[in-house]
Amino acid sequence: MGWGDLGAFGEPSKETPNLDQMAAEGMLFLDFYTANPLCSPSRAALLTGRLPVRNGFYTTNAHARNAYTPQDIVGGIPDSELLLPELLKKAGYINKIIGKWHLGHRPQFHPLKHGFDEWFGSPNCHFGPYDNRELPNIPVYRDWEMIGRYYEDFKIDLKTGEANLTQLYLQEALDFINKQQGSQQPFFLYWAIDATHAPVYASKQFLGTSQRGLYGDAVREIDDSIGKILRHLQQLGISENTFVFFTSDNGAALISAPKQGGSNGPFLCGKQTTFEGGMREPAIAWWPGHIPAGGVSHQLGNVMDLFTTSLSLAGLQPPSDRQIDGIDLLPVILQGKLIDRPIFYYRGNEMMAVRAGLYKAHYWTWSNSWEEYGKGTDFCPGQSVSGVTTHTQEEHTHLPLLFHLGRDPGEKFPLSFASEEYQRAMEWIAGIVQRHRDTLVPGQPQLNVCDKAVMNWSPPGCQKLGKCLKAPESDPKKCSWPH
Amino acid sequence: MGWGDLGAFGEPSKETPNLDQMAAEGMLFLDFYTANPLCSPSRAALLTGRLPVRNGFYTTNAHARNAYTPQDIVGGIPDSELLLPELLKKAGYINKIIGKWHLGHRPQFHPLKHGFDEWFGSPNCHFGPYDNRELPNIPVYRDWEMIGRYYEDFKIDLKTGEANLTQLYLQEALDFINKQQGSQQPFFLYWAIDATHAPVYASKQFLGTSQRGLYGDAVREIDDSIGKILRHLQQLGISENTFVFFTSDNGAALISAPKQGGSNGPFLCGKQTTFEGGMREPAIAWWPGHIPAGGVSHQLGNVMDLFTTSLSLAGLQPPSDRQIDGIDLLPVILQGKLIDRPIFYYRGNEMMAVRAGLYKAHYWTWSNSWEEYGKGTDFCPGQSVSGVTTHTQEEHTHLPLLFHLGRDPGEKFPLSFASEEYQRAMEWIAGIVQRHRDTLVPGQPQLNVCDKAVMNWSPPGCQKLGKCLKAPESDPKKCSWPH
Repeated sequence: MGWGDLGAFGEPSKETPNLDQMAAEGMLFLDFYTANPLCSPSRAALLTGRLPVRNGFYTTNAHARNAYTPQDIVGGIPDSELLLPELLKKAGYINKIIGKWHLGHRPQFHPLKHGFDEWFGSPNCHFGPYDNRELPNIPVYRDWEMIGRYYEDFKIDLKTGEANLTQLYLQEALDFINKQQGSQQPFFLYWAIDATHAPVYASKQFLGTSQRGLYGDAVREIDDSIGKILRHLQQLGISENTFVFFTSDNGAALISAPKQGGSNGPFLCGKQTTFEGGMREPAIAWWPGHIPAGGVSHQLGNVMDLFTTSLSLAGLQPPSDRQIDGIDLLPVILQGKLIDRPIFYYRGNEMMAVRAGLYKAHYWTWSNSWEEYGKGTDFCPGQSVSGVTTHTQEEHTHLPLLFHLGRDPGEKFPLSFASEEYQRAMEWIAGIVQRHRDTLVPGQPQLNVCDKAVMNWSPPGCQKLGKCLKAPESDPKKCSWPH
Repeated sequence: MGWGDLGAFGEPSKETPNLDQMAAEGMLFLDFYTANPLCSPSRAALLTGRLPVRNGFYTTNAHARNAYTPQDIVGGIPDSELLLPELLKKAGYINKIIGKWHLGHRPQFHPLKHGFDEWFGSPNCHFGPYDNRELPNIPVYRDWEMIGRYYEDFKIDLKTGEANLTQLYLQEALDFINKQQGSQQPFFLYWAIDATHAPVYASKQFLGTSQRGLYGDAVREIDDSIGKILRHLQQLGISENTFVFFTSDNGAALISAPKQGGSNGPFLCGKQTTFEGGMREPAIAWWPGHIPAGGVSHQLGNVMDLFTTSLSLAGLQPPSDRQIDGIDLLPVILQGKLIDRPIFYYRGNEMMAVRAGLYKAHYWTWSNSWEEYGKGTDFCPGQSVSGVTTHTQEEHTHLPLLFHLGRDPGEKFPLSFASEEYQRAMEWIAGIVQRHRDTLVPGQPQLNVCDKAVMNWSPPGCQKLGKCLKAPESDPKKCSWPH
């Protein structure tokens, strides 16, 4: 989902009354970022509080490449990483993930091995349908075992866009919340829906209801579901004891526009890029009785902050034996403070850009290769900024391209290198980058090796369902990451 | 000002609390248009309820050219046009214009000859400073006579951007409203401010207060002023008897970005073009006790509707002896109705595009000429849609370029000519265009002739001030309209 996809963020058809209401009752974050322009590393960063380059969710196969966790990926979340649910357990929390895990699908990466107590959802994106010979269909898990596969037991009609998955995820969320009411145990629910990820889907009752086409139908169903979850918390009388945060894992995929792609509002390009459209996200905090209603924050935030903030809410400290990138947002949310901190924009193993205050400096620019662009892959449709949306990897490390995101949110007018403003801002930013580089200990890259043998041929539970498939011979290769 | 310039419309820094509050208390129009991508014809359309091609605010000097009323223009609003204040007089209204008139500066076009009872402001844009030899500085009028000139008696500091004009206009508005309280006479106030028009200005107290630079400072001052006007109406106890509408006369001038240009949100291009960025406007209706708070309307609206709607509020009928393009929005505003009507996008003497429902068909496309573009005049900075943002005038009358503005508000993905959807939509639209053309009686074009002799050399009142200047010999010429 993109920054511009919600009514509260200026989507021209304003079809998200529940999320807009959530913002009106809570706090809207206008300068909130994901840790990566792609879903998988972004979700790993959210759950570890650490940049992908630290937690291993990146590749060194080629320079500055986006990588994720398709089903032939060999890697996943290392055991050495501490995930939010693992830590919350210490404070007595029960933890559930509903939806897309995306931190590795092989047994050692299973969410229940990394702190979650329950899972309903899938390890990978819902691409398909596959023939179960070249590629197996993606499994859907309940806790330790698979209970079916997409396109077989969990239907997605690519022709009509119909799938009732969001409704299943919603019911699962409501049931989980209900269950904890009996136990009085504190809970952490990671509602990791994926209806707006291509192939975009919506339930029958939402199909055709949006001005925006299928993508809008999916957004409307998510909006409706979140409204139901919030009202449920209120009806149970636990809303003032439940912190809720809504955000997205990457900008709208303009490559899928207009049929399956969303809006990044006034920002440049989309998913896969380190321009604002790729990484600035809609974000709303909600906690009635604690967060002043209608608040608007310009705090530079990041999905990694949800790690540290959640620990803080549970009375826990973040781990002290490693670098944590997330900050505790509670002073921002509860007291309206502004914390000075930078945002780093990585593409794989390269820091492409950094934001400090309203300045954003690009050290590298790349939208995608001429080769991919020539094949019709365009991450910036209709947008072209000379020297900025480049189709070769352009290095600017000695003289970064600098933008003022207040005057120029669309990254269209680089500041003059000769200006005093440029000199002053770059002096500040250079120090930030130096400190970042000096302390950076990259993790072991997890997204380098792919092997067809590790795909979801025979996930646990497949025997009971008669859904085990024969894996091919192992043939590990360097994954190909073109972007 | 552009569609994307207000917080309620998704401006990323959300710096307009008063207009956002006005929207929260009133009705937000998401699909509201101006009648022209340029200020002067747009304002003429607002006050006459008629398209510029009917009321004469267009040129036939060249095909599809934007024209306006600089100070060497010979034409202006014809006496045969009936202006809103002329008609409101019949219902006992006192009418005042504060700010930019722009309907002609020669004596016969004076606002007090066209229904206004009072005027504080100027006839033309606040360009300058001039040397008073080649060009005179623009006069500022109080009622019939000039009381000074811009850059002389009414300072605008182009270096700092400081000018207190919006404060003067604000005080004038508050005083006018106060005065009517004594008389019990109904009033019409046309608060026609121009701080966001280049050269952009703001008062000292607002300078440097916006994240967005000088343009944002100007927006903040306008926002603050509107808050003061609305609160004043409330304090006087007349808010429930006063209909207030906020909108703009053209999209943000991206040619002035980023220093003096605003935002058109997710829309294509800006002022001067017939893409959405040129003509879709922020719009808010406010009338406590009548308009349900927090309403959002998808009604296709137009500044010309303010003519008809205002007459309706005053219990008057629009003139029946001529074609009126504005519709009465009261059923929309008070009862939430949706009225089926098209939007026509003209550039001078050519209907470039038409919108019906969510479809927009371009019959002609042109951003600007290669020659102007080569000189650095870019109405679509950072945006380039192949075959759409063309630098030659491209005719598509036989096979219009069709966009679905719900799925594709940015006009980036034309529908396939071969699709059923295209055929169905174009059948509908062709009928609308045929009916429009069949009944169109173009007015006498007013913006064809320019003459240095008619400039503001010696406006009425100049004698008293010793500010009369000698006009050159009359030398009427065809005005040059490059865009």
